[in-house]
Amino acid sequence: MTATNPFVEEGSVEQLVTSEQSTYRADVTAGLDGFLSRQREILVSIAGDALEPAAAITRLTAGGKRLRALLCYWGFRGAGGAAGATEPILAGVALELFQAAALIHDDVIDRSDTRRGSPSVHRQFGTLHQGNRWHLSPDRFGVSAAILTGDMCLSFSEEQFSAIGANAGSGTEARAIFNRMRTEVMAGQYLDLLEEAVGPDRTPAEAAERAQQIVRFKSAKYSIEHPLGLGGALAGAGAAQLRGYSAFSLPLGEAFQLRDDVLGVFGDPLVTGKPAGDDLREGKRTLLIAQALKDGSPADHQLINSTLGLADLDDDGVNRLRDAISTSGALHAVESLIADRWDASTAALGQLELDDVCRTALSGLATAAVSRSA
Amino acid sequence: MTATNPFVEEGSVEQLVTSEQSTYRADVTAGLDGFLSRQREILVSIAGDALEPAAAITRLTAGGKRLRALLCYWGFRGAGGAAGATEPILAGVALELFQAAALIHDDVIDRSDTRRGSPSVHRQFGTLHQGNRWHLSPDRFGVSAAILTGDMCLSFSEEQFSAIGANAGSGTEARAIFNRMRTEVMAGQYLDLLEEAVGPDRTPAEAAERAQQIVRFKSAKYSIEHPLGLGGALAGAGAAQLRGYSAFSLPLGEAFQLRDDVLGVFGDPLVTGKPAGDDLREGKRTLLIAQALKDGSPADHQLINSTLGLADLDDDGVNRLRDAISTSGALHAVESLIADRWDASTAALGQLELDDVCRTALSGLATAAVSRSA
Repeated sequence: MTATNPFVEEGSVEQLVTSEQSTYRADVTAGLDGFLSRQREILVSIAGDALEPAAAITRLTAGGKRLRALLCYWGFRGAGGAAGATEPILAGVALELFQAAALIHDDVIDRSDTRRGSPSVHRQFGTLHQGNRWHLSPDRFGVSAAILTGDMCLSFSEEQFSAIGANAGSGTEARAIFNRMRTEVMAGQYLDLLEEAVGPDRTPAEAAERAQQIVRFKSAKYSIEHPLGLGGALAGAGAAQLRGYSAFSLPLGEAFQLRDDVLGVFGDPLVTGKPAGDDLREGKRTLLIAQALKDGSPADHQLINSTLGLADLDDDGVNRLRDAISTSGALHAVESLIADRWDASTAALGQLELDDVCRTALSGLATAAVSRSA
Repeated sequence: MTATNPFVEEGSVEQLVTSEQSTYRADVTAGLDGFLSRQREILVSIAGDALEPAAAITRLTAGGKRLRALLCYWGFRGAGGAAGATEPILAGVALELFQAAALIHDDVIDRSDTRRGSPSVHRQFGTLHQGNRWHLSPDRFGVSAAILTGDMCLSFSEEQFSAIGANAGSGTEARAIFNRMRTEVMAGQYLDLLEEAVGPDRTPAEAAERAQQIVRFKSAKYSIEHPLGLGGALAGAGAAQLRGYSAFSLPLGEAFQLRDDVLGVFGDPLVTGKPAGDDLREGKRTLLIAQALKDGSPADHQLINSTLGLADLDDDGVNRLRDAISTSGALHAVESLIADRWDASTAALGQLELDDVCRTALSGLATAAVSRSA
């Protein structure tokens, strides 16, 4: 693909990045395939039927942008790690499996029917149940099987992380980052869930503060800061370099999640692969919502608190919420914040000591994370 | 407590076992407390509200018989490990946290309201929601929060396991056992769930075979064989000793689960801490059920396939199912199998090269696992 891209000059830094990144992506995919194929051997030795959870994991991990794995890779390279080393491949596989586990359980919690444009895992199991005309409830079977599949995927993630060996062993910085990443993202997810239940009772200022905590822990640190730092730590980065990485990646991660929040309300379903206004039906109390409550009219307040989170909200209801978010100025405020976080991130990237290939790669990932439509 | 037990002679082997076991139990409890308190510090630095999942884990892990941890300990000691060593304490904490994670998600899947005589975790979160008069559904909040809490607990388990260090690192036998244990128990749980849905369509012979696979993978290997082997591996046990451990622990584990199946149908709720006939309402397709289908009358068949798994089954319905299981001869057949597995286990224990303390300890744990009423 690289050779035929008319925008990339042969032998250019961009081409070096694309080529190295393609190799790494292929290594992560091969690592995932090899690992999951070994797991299938274990499972089939138990019973043929036990393959189904692993099959769902295989399908889910075949897709995705590999954003976290790529951040880990360039974090590793930027700290002097060698191209082709094993550590960031195993860590990348572990991050992709962790993300898959989180998505499987997230979709159960949010009752999302689709993921990456395909049926979510609990829906796949529900359909399997219906297709076979099994007994009891297909929905309940689907949810239960997805809970177990997510658990299996979480264990698989750890199995691959520990396979890195001594560099990610007990007491290392890489292990500390991986541990902290898991605790923080789960805490952030809990706060997110709690906010759906408590949100309507908060003052706009409290709601905005909580929304920012959720952005930071559920997403910015987990999706961007920790994968990059993990890669750096695996290559032996010191404290100063890791601080430099964070100065770049934490604001980038915040911009990344705020972009996600905007897409969850205003995104094109054909591009996002999720129904229009899904976040509104799920009752997500994002900064966009907190800002609309802060800046909106009493009528906006009333509309948001009475219709946000209604699972059967129709397109008309979605449109009215969108209008309220837009006219209140909340959309503009969040877009400004994205721009501000982007500027902070870009400035910090300029301060990092990196060779041209690593700098170009990280700059490209940053753009992809924030200037996206899906 | 030891000193005042009139059945244990001072200075006897029994007293040595009890005393050593008390020390280890206290070490595991202290290990859990210390670890969870460090996690609470991390969580409170995110937000005070984020403490709730850790609080639920703390409450759940305060109880329990510590069976898996104790098996790990005596497996370690039986393979020459020193009393007071750190490895089996960390592994014991990891096993207890893993079991807690499994129980939290199991209770969601089975919709069990109680666990260890207290409300299950999803019920605790549901009650928290109701007590605070939060918005949206308390049940849905409870289930979602319990899914996240189980995920956190699963991650905590791994964190403590990896803290063992090099002895449980990549490529070691201990790590291989821990990895295999997780995959197998999750596969076994999936088969168990699948059986509730598919069971009525199976022939009695198929159902009995599947029930035995579930006993083996969901419970016998996970609860008994692997914890013992893990302890052995941490002390450097060779292949022959691990095979000897399995010859003792796998049949013991089968007897343990079959006893559990009998208690799930015939146990006294005051002793088990679970409502009478809970397994029948949950539709568990145990060997007891498979055997009743194999040996029972056409009327027994009809009764089982039409009422097993009804969430609203009343006491009368429970009693009729119990009668069918009893009069079909299934209860007697399963009790015979328990006796048979017990004999196999006892014979294998006799073959193990162990000092008196370890032999007495393992014999005591075996008795507690099988001759119990809760």
